[in-house]
Amino acid sequence: MSGTNDVSDWWRTSIIDMEPGRISLRGHAVQDLIGTTGFAEMIWLMVTGDRISGPRAKLFEAALVAAVDHGPQAPSIAAARMAATCGIGLQSAMATGLNMLGDVHGGAGEQAVELYRRIDGAGHDGLVATLDAWRQHHGKFVPGFGHRFHKPVDPRAPRLLALVGEAAGQGAVSGRFAEIGRAIESRLAEERGKPVPMNIDGATAVIYAELGCPAPLARGFFGLSRSVGILAHAWEQTEQGGRNKGPTPPGYRWTYDGG
Amino acid sequence: MSGTNDVSDWWRTSIIDMEPGRISLRGHAVQDLIGTTGFAEMIWLMVTGDRISGPRAKLFEAALVAAVDHGPQAPSIAAARMAATCGIGLQSAMATGLNMLGDVHGGAGEQAVELYRRIDGAGHDGLVATLDAWRQHHGKFVPGFGHRFHKPVDPRAPRLLALVGEAAGQGAVSGRFAEIGRAIESRLAEERGKPVPMNIDGATAVIYAELGCPAPLARGFFGLSRSVGILAHAWEQTEQGGRNKGPTPPGYRWTYDGG
Amino acid sequence: MSGTNDVSDWWRTSIIDMEPGRISLRGHAVQDLIGTTGFAEMIWLMVTGDRISGPRAKLFEAALVAAVDHGPQAPSIAAARMAATCGIGLQSAMATGLNMLGDVHGGAGEQAVELYRRIDGAGHDGLVATLDAWRQHHGKFVPGFGHRFHKPVDPRAPRLLALVGEAAGQGAVSGRFAEIGRAIESRLAEERGKPVPMNIDGATAVIYAELGCPAPLARGFFGLSRSVGILAHAWEQTEQGGRNKGPTPPGYRWTYDGG
Amino acid sequence: MSGTNDVSDWWRTSIIDMEPGRISLRGHAVQDLIGTTGFAEMIWLMVTGDRISGPRAKLFEAALVAAVDHGPQAPSIAAARMAATCGIGLQSAMATGLNMLGDVHGGAGEQAVELYRRIDGAGHDGLVATLDAWRQHHGKFVPGFGHRFHKPVDPRAPRLLALVGEAAGQGAVSGRFAEIGRAIESRLAEERGKPVPMNIDGATAVIYAELGCPAPLARGFFGLSRSVGILAHAWEQTEQGGRNKGPTPPGYRWTYDGG
Repeated sequence: MSGTNDVSDWWRTSIIDMEPGRISLRGHAVQDLIGTTGFAEMIWLMVTGDRISGPRAKLFEAALVAAVDHGPQAPSIAAARMAATCGIGLQSAMATGLNMLGDVHGGAGEQAVELYRRIDGAGHDGLVATLDAWRQHHGKFVPGFGHRFHKPVDPRAPRLLALVGEAAGQGAVSGRFAEIGRAIESRLAEERGKPVPMNIDGATAVIYAELGCPAPLARGFFGLSRSVGILAHAWEQTEQGGRNKGPTPPGYRWTYDGG
Repeated sequence: MSGTNDVSDWWRTSIIDMEPGRISLRGHAVQDLIGTTGFAEMIWLMVTGDRISGPRAKLFEAALVAAVDHGPQAPSIAAARMAATCGIGLQSAMATGLNMLGDVHGGAGEQAVELYRRIDGAGHDGLVATLDAWRQHHGKFVPGFGHRFHKPVDPRAPRLLALVGEAAGQGAVSGRFAEIGRAIESRLAEERGKPVPMNIDGATAVIYAELGCPAPLARGFFGLSRSVGILAHAWEQTEQGGRNKGPTPPGYRWTYDGG
Repeated sequence: MSGTNDVSDWWRTSIIDMEPGRISLRGHAVQDLIGTTGFAEMIWLMVTGDRISGPRAKLFEAALVAAVDHGPQAPSIAAARMAATCGIGLQSAMATGLNMLGDVHGGAGEQAVELYRRIDGAGHDGLVATLDAWRQHHGKFVPGFGHRFHKPVDPRAPRLLALVGEAAGQGAVSGRFAEIGRAIESRLAEERGKPVPMNIDGATAVIYAELGCPAPLARGFFGLSRSVGILAHAWEQTEQGGRNKGPTPPGYRWTYDGG
Repeated sequence: MSGTNDVSDWWRTSIIDMEPGRISLRGHAVQDLIGTTGFAEMIWLMVTGDRISGPRAKLFEAALVAAVDHGPQAPSIAAARMAATCGIGLQSAMATGLNMLGDVHGGAGEQAVELYRRIDGAGHDGLVATLDAWRQHHGKFVPGFGHRFHKPVDPRAPRLLALVGEAAGQGAVSGRFAEIGRAIESRLAEERGKPVPMNIDGATAVIYAELGCPAPLARGFFGLSRSVGILAHAWEQTEQGGRNKGPTPPGYRWTYDGG
């Protein structure tokens, strides 16, 4: 397709080209991608425009797999399950869950990539100053570290870091963002006198930083990953049935705080 | 986690079990899944509860890869690109696109799985009667066949069917839903005196039916697949910039139809 | 604005006309509407194209006021409150709540208008047959009657019906849909041997039917009305604070149902 | 309802109190509000907890009426119209439009209220410094002033300011935020050597500031107001029909920018 006027130019993309009977995605005929390309590789290709393969693809896939679900206490999952009982379509229930992911719920990965990059730019000796400056501006939480539930350790983080280590050993990534992550962990433990271990967001952010991915995509990829859990839960709830499911059993209702 | 009271029982799931430091997904420790499980396999496991592997996993992955994008003329993609210029988060832009997928835009796969299953139930001789009954109830469109743009052939369909053929040759699937799809195609061509070829929805529906997947999941899986294109386009638009992007260049506006 | 080409014709509307410095809504200069038109009247004008005033406007306003909120047990309200703690904008939190309203949660009003119209078409003697036919097709629930919480009476319904009675007394509406509603109520009480009183959906549907409004708009107007409660709760939650608010206190989690 | 345990306390609200047969909104029995309270007054009561009446209610109503629509070039309206052709419910189409409203599209009102309050705090002589500080931090756009389409004047702004003047004359509001708005307008005209007139966001922000409303509510109220136009357009599109409506006529497609 080669539009030359202002109307088709209003919608410019280098992602997809089409003519009747022909679909080309990032320069590859769709029929050549189908059956030869893994779904994770396809995600990377579509979003970044580049191919990913080998140990780097494995890392990306691990990050996607790790974040699919954290149970119905997460507002995204709870909302999707409730939506599934309200008579909207399955994809609308998914959208309801996905729409809950914002700066607070699912935003820490993006923030951690940014923080790592700043520390990387500042050099090893700049870690403390960079961390302090970050907290002065953003508040006391360091994105990607500590977990209100998983104590002492978020089981996903060490596994993801081990995979980064393997990939670094093969020369597929530099490994320096894993070092930065570990250095932050050490610094926080020192400051607080107890472990503040890296969590899922901190660990996937190491992977996204190692892969050279823009920080906001850590958020986008988290959205794709958590959509899997959202779909699984929305579907399970559909099969369980129910109508207008509320957050607690109907008998509890709420506490009235007014005058 | 084993809640025994009515509050924790209000949220029952067999998808995920958790304790501090432990996350189990469909009975597997999360750290055992990370690094060993492909993203497509993880999707299947989470949503259906079963493992998928070998030629069946390859089929599922092909269906996910095939449907990622159909360009900015699709309302889901256009809406996500516009949303990306309105100052909402990337995941909210994704949700906006995903929320457009309904009975008409992304619903044909589910309907085609249902139609195939009915024909399968009716037996080979029942095809014409089943098809007629379907159309009498749902209208003249047969879901999964014909395409307003891709003529003569939707390039994704033959490739997907070829993969089903391979998997059937290996005994991984029965192949009978591919036959049903081809039989519908023949019947429609006969009726109309011209080809009405199977499209992406018809072909992915063959795969979902072959894999034994409930019809509504054809819709859920399509949602996951198209979310990839939605993210790619929302991100590309973010990088292109723009504020409050409308559907057409500002000079065109709209036609006023009032008195 | 008078586009004559296919691009501006792609977006045709009789709602709004614009030129630089001029905005006309349904044929009225916006500055003439501001300060002279109530918000409810403006809603009616924008959506239906007609003016509403006097007792009819009062009825419409009553329907909008009656449905604004039913508390945080309603999934729409709960989801909006949870969304408000996830770091998305206030309007996205509102959209999250509004998106929960579907066939089951907020769809009964539309269905009740349809049912009333059918009974109206069938004539008084046709009530039982029409009601039976409806239930045969849609299931045992009669939309707009009975309430799982408000027993014996939903306090909104009698008040709304009294207003319809007043308006009918003034000749502003016919009153025949109120009669149909009461006849359904009598029939259901007779069948079940106990009262099955009209609820908010049944009562607002009487008003929408009396006003001559297409059935689907009963759903759209409900969406506008409930958006008020959604905003109120999302804002209250914002002021209360919280991060990633789940459906129940964190200590409860959920019940694992797996193997 | 007076829950005393941690489960009902998890959902605390002073908006609504309920028992079977009784609904109290902000301390008023719902049946006492229905038929006596205008929809705009109900919105104010629900969201702020206070009653509004007389000239103040009229101002609030004017702000709600003024912002209902700006035509299908606005991404919120275009998205809702496209959604209406995708086979999702009317409320989901509304949610799609509402979800587009973010910092850029519909956020200027909130920002303008904040700016006015800062200038009010700084005193008359602080206007220039406050304005400069704002732009240094937020960029060159001053929220609420200038319009890319309505030149020389946004017809909604002078009408809204005239109403503020009337209310100030009656002593119902102070009028000092209208003065601040006009002072900003003068300063910008002086700086740029041409008029940069107040737009709808700047004018509604004057009203919200005069009414003492927290800045984020300017955004929430805008969401309610624009939802009216969103519904009107989604419904008009539903009646026009169409399937999978894209942003431009199908013949135009898009411009491929890839290699």
